[in-house]
Amino acid sequence: MKTQYYTAASLDGFIATEDDSLAWLFELGDVPDSSYPEFIAKVGAIAMGSATYRWILEHSSEVEAQTGSAWPYACPTWVFTTRPQKAIPGADVRFVSGDVRAVFPEMRATAGERNLWIVGGGDLAGQFCDAGLLDELIVQVGSATLGRGKPLLPRRLCGSVLHLTCVSRLGPEMVELRYDVRK
Amino acid sequence: MKTQYYTAASLDGFIATEDDSLAWLFELGDVPDSSYPEFIAKVGAIAMGSATYRWILEHSSEVEAQTGSAWPYACPTWVFTTRPQKAIPGADVRFVSGDVRAVFPEMRATAGERNLWIVGGGDLAGQFCDAGLLDELIVQVGSATLGRGKPLLPRRLCGSVLHLTCVSRLGPEMVELRYDVRK
Repeated sequence: MKTQYYTAASLDGFIATEDDSLAWLFELGDVPDSSYPEFIAKVGAIAMGSATYRWILEHSSEVEAQTGSAWPYACPTWVFTTRPQKAIPGADVRFVSGDVRAVFPEMRATAGERNLWIVGGGDLAGQFCDAGLLDELIVQVGSATLGRGKPLLPRRLCGSVLHLTCVSRLGPEMVELRYDVRK
Repeated sequence: MKTQYYTAASLDGFIATEDDSLAWLFELGDVPDSSYPEFIAKVGAIAMGSATYRWILEHSSEVEAQTGSAWPYACPTWVFTTRPQKAIPGADVRFVSGDVRAVFPEMRATAGERNLWIVGGGDLAGQFCDAGLLDELIVQVGSATLGRGKPLLPRRLCGSVLHLTCVSRLGPEMVELRYDVRK
């Protein structure tokens, strides 16, 4: 029953380019030992920012080719957005706005005994962190630098907050770092 | 005989705060299994940017308290600077400016059978990288995010350039990632 920010990032701390491209990540190739199947099996609810949602909406054919569905998530998803967004057929999505603390109890209750996944982006994860609601940060660091782009977590969290719990190599060009977030 | 950029960085890819502070790093505590003694034993010459040099100059009492000397490097050091800099007593330093390629042969010859260490900052490392002179990137990733600051490597190096060669945990709050730089 954790709230987890699980994402891939470049070595220099970006999750996407400035125009939200993930091509840098796909260039690294398939990850033979991905932690995703085990991770997603324990997720009961999802929170997502509007840029991430729009990326899935605008790349539906890519997403479908890779995952078999234009909406690859089985569990209920809350999309934080200040503007109306198109629906994706088959997606169990609620559009919400405002303070993450107001929405958290419903998400938490829906997740039940399972985890709540903050898909991203970094600012949404930062809002959960600011509110003391983030329990764990799980980052797959890929062998690339982007120089600029969308930041992993635009917050200052110093040594007393993040605690490294696990380091594991995932295939040739990825290492996964897991951190507990102390409150 | 490699040219290596060896540095610590936050999880979000900064080597220092915007005002060049390393307090975030010192807060992580001593690193019981630091790779530094083995690394520095194989270094024969050093390249350093002016901000790094000035930091050492302005923090001489801290540096002396930690290392026993106001200038902690035994081997010849080239400081890349466009402005005159004060000398540090006992430091074997040459002040240079301009294209790193013009200075590289002399540094390489001085290092001899040993390695050339690019101390930083990120822009100087990027200049060596742009010139095809960087062989290895060694980053100790500490359990902290800074949100903003001096970037690790303000360049775009995608999957075909960086190759992850080694992952090793150094104490409770640090993991070292080593990458070969393909040319």
